[in-house]
Amino acid sequence: MPATVPFVGPEAIERQRNLPVKARIGANESGFGPSPKVHLALQAASSDIWKYADPENFDLKAALAAHYGLAADNFAVGEGVDDLLGLTVRLVIEQGLPVVTSLGGYPTFNFHVNGFGGQLVTVPYRQDREDLDGLLEAVRRENAPLAYLANPDNPMGSWHESHDVVAFARALPETCLLILDEAYSETAPAGSIPAVDALIDLPNVLRMRTFSKAYGLAGARIGYAIGTPGTVSAFDKIRNHFGMVRTSVAAALAALADQDYLTATVARIIAARERISSIARQNGLQPLASATNFVAVDCGRDPAYARSIVDGLMQHGVFIRMPGVAPLNRCIRISAGLPEDLDLLEQALPIVLRDIG
Amino acid sequence: MPATVPFVGPEAIERQRNLPVKARIGANESGFGPSPKVHLALQAASSDIWKYADPENFDLKAALAAHYGLAADNFAVGEGVDDLLGLTVRLVIEQGLPVVTSLGGYPTFNFHVNGFGGQLVTVPYRQDREDLDGLLEAVRRENAPLAYLANPDNPMGSWHESHDVVAFARALPETCLLILDEAYSETAPAGSIPAVDALIDLPNVLRMRTFSKAYGLAGARIGYAIGTPGTVSAFDKIRNHFGMVRTSVAAALAALADQDYLTATVARIIAARERISSIARQNGLQPLASATNFVAVDCGRDPAYARSIVDGLMQHGVFIRMPGVAPLNRCIRISAGLPEDLDLLEQALPIVLRDIG
Repeated sequence: MPATVPFVGPEAIERQRNLPVKARIGANESGFGPSPKVHLALQAASSDIWKYADPENFDLKAALAAHYGLAADNFAVGEGVDDLLGLTVRLVIEQGLPVVTSLGGYPTFNFHVNGFGGQLVTVPYRQDREDLDGLLEAVRRENAPLAYLANPDNPMGSWHESHDVVAFARALPETCLLILDEAYSETAPAGSIPAVDALIDLPNVLRMRTFSKAYGLAGARIGYAIGTPGTVSAFDKIRNHFGMVRTSVAAALAALADQDYLTATVARIIAARERISSIARQNGLQPLASATNFVAVDCGRDPAYARSIVDGLMQHGVFIRMPGVAPLNRCIRISAGLPEDLDLLEQALPIVLRDIG
Repeated sequence: MPATVPFVGPEAIERQRNLPVKARIGANESGFGPSPKVHLALQAASSDIWKYADPENFDLKAALAAHYGLAADNFAVGEGVDDLLGLTVRLVIEQGLPVVTSLGGYPTFNFHVNGFGGQLVTVPYRQDREDLDGLLEAVRRENAPLAYLANPDNPMGSWHESHDVVAFARALPETCLLILDEAYSETAPAGSIPAVDALIDLPNVLRMRTFSKAYGLAGARIGYAIGTPGTVSAFDKIRNHFGMVRTSVAAALAALADQDYLTATVARIIAARERISSIARQNGLQPLASATNFVAVDCGRDPAYARSIVDGLMQHGVFIRMPGVAPLNRCIRISAGLPEDLDLLEQALPIVLRDIG
């Protein structure tokens, strides 16, 4: 098993390079933060931190059910989508079984597949989007019991139309469980996210969502899966029943309740995407259209060039990341951030580009 | 795989029985709560909840290293000991491999062993203590690659002398990894917990500790394992690197820094143990000596009798638990709590005993 860590955290980069992060726009967190009501909820829940959280996650499932117009037993709650990804792989994969994903897709999913002995079957992106036809073909060819699709996609920020995603899911053999990672659903354009009931009849589809992105709660570790009661209840066989953090659950409840704040945040994320794109263009780089809280920027040259931009920006305290594999790694990936974060980017980027030539 | 849940939470009991918990003294949490400095730390960390926690847990490992006089790489940090137990089982166990533990020992460990296909080999308690000789014999007989010992023990609250624990660990074949669960180490009597360097040379020993018990942070989910750098680094191959909650890490750091509060809390826990014991005796029941933050009380009859006491107390809003298997399940298990919690226990217990006759 590879001892690879999926990502190096900004704190580790600070320590390794002895440089402070001034603009934290590399991990697709939300510098806009969560609703102010979340902070009140965290403060209120602080006095209950001596208690384990409710292992049934009753209140959060009820709130999600009300939010989506589904039943509570359509939801599984986990310690972030990362946790649910690991549990899903564990439920389905035995040594050597094939798992289909995109070449350059979410590394943490791959980490879990490797960790449970699965055999990754990767399908290249097509025009910087995950290749639905290619993924479907790979699932059929390999008789894969598990497939992963992110819509919108990370690290490219691209997306598919809702009807194409639904058609893809419905075309999969029912022996293949689809993880439809919708971590970035809140920031996606209209028409790109299937309606909540469009796939809810399919026992072989798990849609995963999170409070880590638009809701601004990456540090709270709350994700959830939407699926049929039979499918989501499988997590109960293996999940850490007392694994949720009590204050985090309170934070998620408060965040979900403040949809006005979410709407305002999404507007700020979209404005930040536009400004990142504009900064990129001003510097002769090509921003890709994005449905997420980040923008992939095509730097037009080789991975070493993109890497030198990432490293050079960090020299100025601007923490960003880049995709890990070709041809995606001609790009850099910049997360939406506060105006002052993007000011730093705007100042540093031309200097970096000039320095590396 | 059994879909068993290791424990039913008090919130679920409230919902199932439509009864409010007034005295939450069943889950070995600490009603005394964490240090007041923890609440300040939680409040301060709240503004950073949009950031993932440092996946290397650098600050917490450094603080633990300073606290124990060890190196940072002697520690692995996890989302509670439950998380680390699951990861350890995953690292060691393949389908059908034997795992030695005590009959009636920690159910969550058994849940993970079952979940990864291990074969539990259980050794009965001897005089309400885990049987070191019996565990050692079982490991040798089965050639078990994994063994679990809690010292002090849950659910009985019993303990072994430090030198006996050390002798047990050193007598184990080096092909057997020992999980030495020391969740209750802070409340144990002098001479029962091996010195931190007594076992640190053994690559086949992982000592697990937690902020959930005496530190009063059950809801924060922070546990850690102490071992050789080679052994604890194995967790990095499979753990959820971005699984820690940022506010919880801040809470743990503040809790660890306030050893005066811990000392005062342990004194309150010991006083509560004595009062629980006294209440038990006043009602003709036999409290067992305890090294933990709870007291097992021998009710002197069959499991149904103990169960009826547990259920009867809940009728009065007093939430307690009981061991799951014979002969331990002649007992009930009552966690240390605030004076007002124990007042409720003192009022309710004679009524319950009279009612059930």
